Amino acid sequence: MGTKLIIDTDPGVDDAFAIALAALSEDVDLLAVTTVYGNVALADTTRNAQRLLALCKRDDVPVAAGASRPLVHPQAHRASRIHGPDGLSGRSDILPEPARELVSGGAVALLASVLEAADEPVTIAPIGPLTNIAALLAAHPGIGEKIARVVIMGGALAHGNTTAAAEFNIWSDPEAAQRVLAGGEVHCVLVPLDLTHRCAIDAAWLAQLAASGPIGAALDALTPDYRAHYRTVLGYDGMMVHDAVAVAEAIRPGILRTEAVPVQVECSYGPARGATLADLRSPGQRAGDAHPEAVLTDVAVDTELAELQTFLLERLTGTPR
Amino acid sequence: MGTKLIIDTDPGVDDAFAIALAALSEDVDLLAVTTVYGNVALADTTRNAQRLLALCKRDDVPVAAGASRPLVHPQAHRASRIHGPDGLSGRSDILPEPARELVSGGAVALLASVLEAADEPVTIAPIGPLTNIAALLAAHPGIGEKIARVVIMGGALAHGNTTAAAEFNIWSDPEAAQRVLAGGEVHCVLVPLDLTHRCAIDAAWLAQLAASGPIGAALDALTPDYRAHYRTVLGYDGMMVHDAVAVAEAIRPGILRTEAVPVQVECSYGPARGATLADLRSPGQRAGDAHPEAVLTDVAVDTELAELQTFLLERLTGTPR
Amino acid sequence: MGTKLIIDTDPGVDDAFAIALAALSEDVDLLAVTTVYGNVALADTTRNAQRLLALCKRDDVPVAAGASRPLVHPQAHRASRIHGPDGLSGRSDILPEPARELVSGGAVALLASVLEAADEPVTIAPIGPLTNIAALLAAHPGIGEKIARVVIMGGALAHGNTTAAAEFNIWSDPEAAQRVLAGGEVHCVLVPLDLTHRCAIDAAWLAQLAASGPIGAALDALTPDYRAHYRTVLGYDGMMVHDAVAVAEAIRPGILRTEAVPVQVECSYGPARGATLADLRSPGQRAGDAHPEAVLTDVAVDTELAELQTFLLERLTGTPR
Amino acid sequence: MGTKLIIDTDPGVDDAFAIALAALSEDVDLLAVTTVYGNVALADTTRNAQRLLALCKRDDVPVAAGASRPLVHPQAHRASRIHGPDGLSGRSDILPEPARELVSGGAVALLASVLEAADEPVTIAPIGPLTNIAALLAAHPGIGEKIARVVIMGGALAHGNTTAAAEFNIWSDPEAAQRVLAGGEVHCVLVPLDLTHRCAIDAAWLAQLAASGPIGAALDALTPDYRAHYRTVLGYDGMMVHDAVAVAEAIRPGILRTEAVPVQVECSYGPARGATLADLRSPGQRAGDAHPEAVLTDVAVDTELAELQTFLLERLTGTPR
Repeated sequence: MGTKLIIDTDPGVDDAFAIALAALSEDVDLLAVTTVYGNVALADTTRNAQRLLALCKRDDVPVAAGASRPLVHPQAHRASRIHGPDGLSGRSDILPEPARELVSGGAVALLASVLEAADEPVTIAPIGPLTNIAALLAAHPGIGEKIARVVIMGGALAHGNTTAAAEFNIWSDPEAAQRVLAGGEVHCVLVPLDLTHRCAIDAAWLAQLAASGPIGAALDALTPDYRAHYRTVLGYDGMMVHDAVAVAEAIRPGILRTEAVPVQVECSYGPARGATLADLRSPGQRAGDAHPEAVLTDVAVDTELAELQTFLLERLTGTPR
Repeated sequence: MGTKLIIDTDPGVDDAFAIALAALSEDVDLLAVTTVYGNVALADTTRNAQRLLALCKRDDVPVAAGASRPLVHPQAHRASRIHGPDGLSGRSDILPEPARELVSGGAVALLASVLEAADEPVTIAPIGPLTNIAALLAAHPGIGEKIARVVIMGGALAHGNTTAAAEFNIWSDPEAAQRVLAGGEVHCVLVPLDLTHRCAIDAAWLAQLAASGPIGAALDALTPDYRAHYRTVLGYDGMMVHDAVAVAEAIRPGILRTEAVPVQVECSYGPARGATLADLRSPGQRAGDAHPEAVLTDVAVDTELAELQTFLLERLTGTPR
Repeated sequence: MGTKLIIDTDPGVDDAFAIALAALSEDVDLLAVTTVYGNVALADTTRNAQRLLALCKRDDVPVAAGASRPLVHPQAHRASRIHGPDGLSGRSDILPEPARELVSGGAVALLASVLEAADEPVTIAPIGPLTNIAALLAAHPGIGEKIARVVIMGGALAHGNTTAAAEFNIWSDPEAAQRVLAGGEVHCVLVPLDLTHRCAIDAAWLAQLAASGPIGAALDALTPDYRAHYRTVLGYDGMMVHDAVAVAEAIRPGILRTEAVPVQVECSYGPARGATLADLRSPGQRAGDAHPEAVLTDVAVDTELAELQTFLLERLTGTPR
Repeated sequence: MGTKLIIDTDPGVDDAFAIALAALSEDVDLLAVTTVYGNVALADTTRNAQRLLALCKRDDVPVAAGASRPLVHPQAHRASRIHGPDGLSGRSDILPEPARELVSGGAVALLASVLEAADEPVTIAPIGPLTNIAALLAAHPGIGEKIARVVIMGGALAHGNTTAAAEFNIWSDPEAAQRVLAGGEVHCVLVPLDLTHRCAIDAAWLAQLAASGPIGAALDALTPDYRAHYRTVLGYDGMMVHDAVAVAEAIRPGILRTEAVPVQVECSYGPARGATLADLRSPGQRAGDAHPEAVLTDVAVDTELAELQTFLLERLTGTPR
């Protein structure tokens, strides 16, 4: 009955769009949503995830709270305020109250039990720091066999957004990202900033969403702070929907074009901390390397922009295809 | 009925002594043994742990296999051969076959379920790389409340054994050690090389053990390769029993004298990788620091040597006290 | 009488073109050439530099040998063979013997004395590892006032050539590069791989050079190994002239378009070692940074390709403009 | 006519004692004093050095100012106030004005010219950050042949004073220290905190110094702030004379007992930054290392304390031996 999916998330405005995208897609079997600190603190991201599922009338989807801090080192002190004080432009109160209690035992336990119970490999879409996923792999050796793909929103091939070198999700927990991306335990698809930046949607797209009904109107109502930030970055009235681009690939494999290359994450405390080093050199250039046997990650490098934007809008507005 | 204890281990000759110490102590409630890669590969350490419990006739103790690799980065290529090819001087075949199957689900799941089920906080004695313990903390936020103490054999205050700076267990997984020691989630007691080096036992001690009965004879029979290594380090016929010193503290709190100081683990890829930086400066010297609020670790700095050696021998030989 | 210039170099085929470019330009006052290890060992790079000046009949230009190893750590063991065994496709023997002895005292002493003696600020064009320049700044505090610009061939904004992250010159001595680029003592112009890659010249250009006379023919004769390498990288018969692009900017300021941004060099031993982190984020994105007062480097980001290629060819062939 | 010596220094109270020790020793040919930032800023350390030589009536000794910042990275923001605001307990005004102008051209140029002019190898005693010495080696390849020994006050084998791991001089410029200690260009003797801590002098020793005459009285008068700091560290009225211990070895070779071991300096930005990693393991333990061919440093590990303290007092008071 469609792609079996778990979303691991730190909503966040673009996370909200990504969750709704999966929750409203009839060809997606959304098995669970797990939460992590990130755009805002864990209590907020968890509450936001619950409310977004309530908005989408998906009380059938279990939610569990995960990590409140990174895998190895304490959380860096820079908090993102791009998403507003509560992660949803200060508007989370417009969403319905959670309709279901959290699953006890936490995110990793829920991930493990859902994966173990599934009769086919499950796709995981982590769209926040990768702490929960790294903890899952470390605590449950062999669990990778139950995972079809890990489609990650994260990283930056050329330049970062949180530092000169690093994108926010990977910068938030480089060690977790290194375990997941370079560990060789799961098939990873990395959807980096370079591509999601190009997939920004504009005011007209948002107006169509807002006019589509109560869910679309609510989603649009969550965007003001975030949209104000991206107006200055983009130079026009629009916003990036990073996480929704990754979830689009998770539920419609192939909507993004990928290349398989080695990816490492810089974990030192130098200026490149949190950078995702994708080896885009030609095989000839790479030949002299000490470690040619590196794990390969499918890095998303391109898409049909119009098709992607239409796909996102149709799914979020319930327009039949 | 005594200290509730879980041992996390990578046997290893001194691990064998440590496991036997707990398994043969009537005032210890040994709830589980979990295994980890380290002195040798996971398959060997797990098999060794099972056989050691069979030797001690402790088929009541559940065993689960844990991590086969470090938390973040791939395992460094230097393997310890100090313990012989199978971790027990090539003599593991003299031990009985495992009398009980492994618990499925792995070490972290067993740790979590045993901790959750316990009616009082449990002591954990990790005597190998700290991978399983870090994964436990990362995968089960809040589990620290069920843990009384984590009594760790690991680290070196002054000088290392595996590199100039680092002790083997911490060097094997510095990121896991940093999470456990500096994370502030559990009360840690660190038993470093500096102290265990001084607690070496000699040929006379081993002779008494060997003469005490079949278990003592078997333990003594596991030592040749390891003892040969330490003869060159110590300059006399004897050996270090690092892990048994830590387990002694775990089961008789206070047998080691400790000082509470901040401890950090170097996780960079420089020459100090895996070093445990214990801040032994006076409070006056420390006052100028950026982070005076650091987590404190109880570092074992001294013991009554004769008393400790007698304690170990009595417990391993079943001599009534 | 034109730009006062010193070239610091490790020839290398593209260095050869760069040296000839300056040596043959009548509007350039080439005050000295200093050498450094890099593409090949110091003895070879020094000999090559001397011979190239002899080829250009520039015995008036003093040459001194500089560093044979990086500033801080031992040289990494990977040697570039892209330039052939002697740095000039194995063809250095076709060049005339050096017509002048090396200046004793070394490269830094020559740099310092030439700078001190100059009646106006001098441009330095380092087109190898930055070891000599960092040593100059460290050994002669205040010397920066005598330097107009340091126009550096080095770095990679998006992706490296020697590793996934790092360009060869910077990767060869990241600590020296960090001192020069981020130290704030000199005005730096960085000409990165991203731009020099786009400035590759093709077979037709090389044919014109070869036909222009004995110097052009000799330069062309030095290219076979290097050209073979770049044929596989470029996918056509051509080659990159990295160093000549930087020297073009040194002698015709403004031929490259630059942007002033903060640049840091990663000096850790992680996968990003040697990466040049140029902060290309918008001022709005950068605003939250801890260190907004960073030193700015002029990074070359674009040029009129046809104009640049014509400029290079005219200068190297002696065609009047 | 005795040991040819250059002192590179950042006075500092114990530097003052060290300078006086050399300046007042008739069997020492003090060729130059060079200065560096460190305990206080360069302008202060330079002025202090000049005044101390004036106090000792050594206007024959040339002084030059060196580095005002570390070799690679900007100076860390923590300044030592142990030596008082001017580096000499706020008492530098009691010293005579400088009797001689600074040598122009800076410390490295003076070092190079003095070394080049010497008819036998010269001992250098760096008792501040190693920036000038690293710059000398980098800027003057081959100069090591003119250097007999580099006797360094710096480092900590077991525990630091500035951080848990690092001693102040090395912590101030780890990259410079790594170049000097591990570069293999000069014969280094490292006099670490571990030994200098044990060589503290007490109130009776200082009273004898103060009573010995105007120079002794002036030296004693510089100590109040420094002595107050060390009273809390030592637990009695006394103070460490770190730098004088190193200069004692420089001028009386063998007064300290040394061991030749590999030493590396941690240059990463982790908690061990600036640690000196001396490999004190037995050759058997070291055998498995990747780099057994490491450069050896003579590390001072012991001395006859009473003899050393008497030596220092006799030299500083002019008492005939």
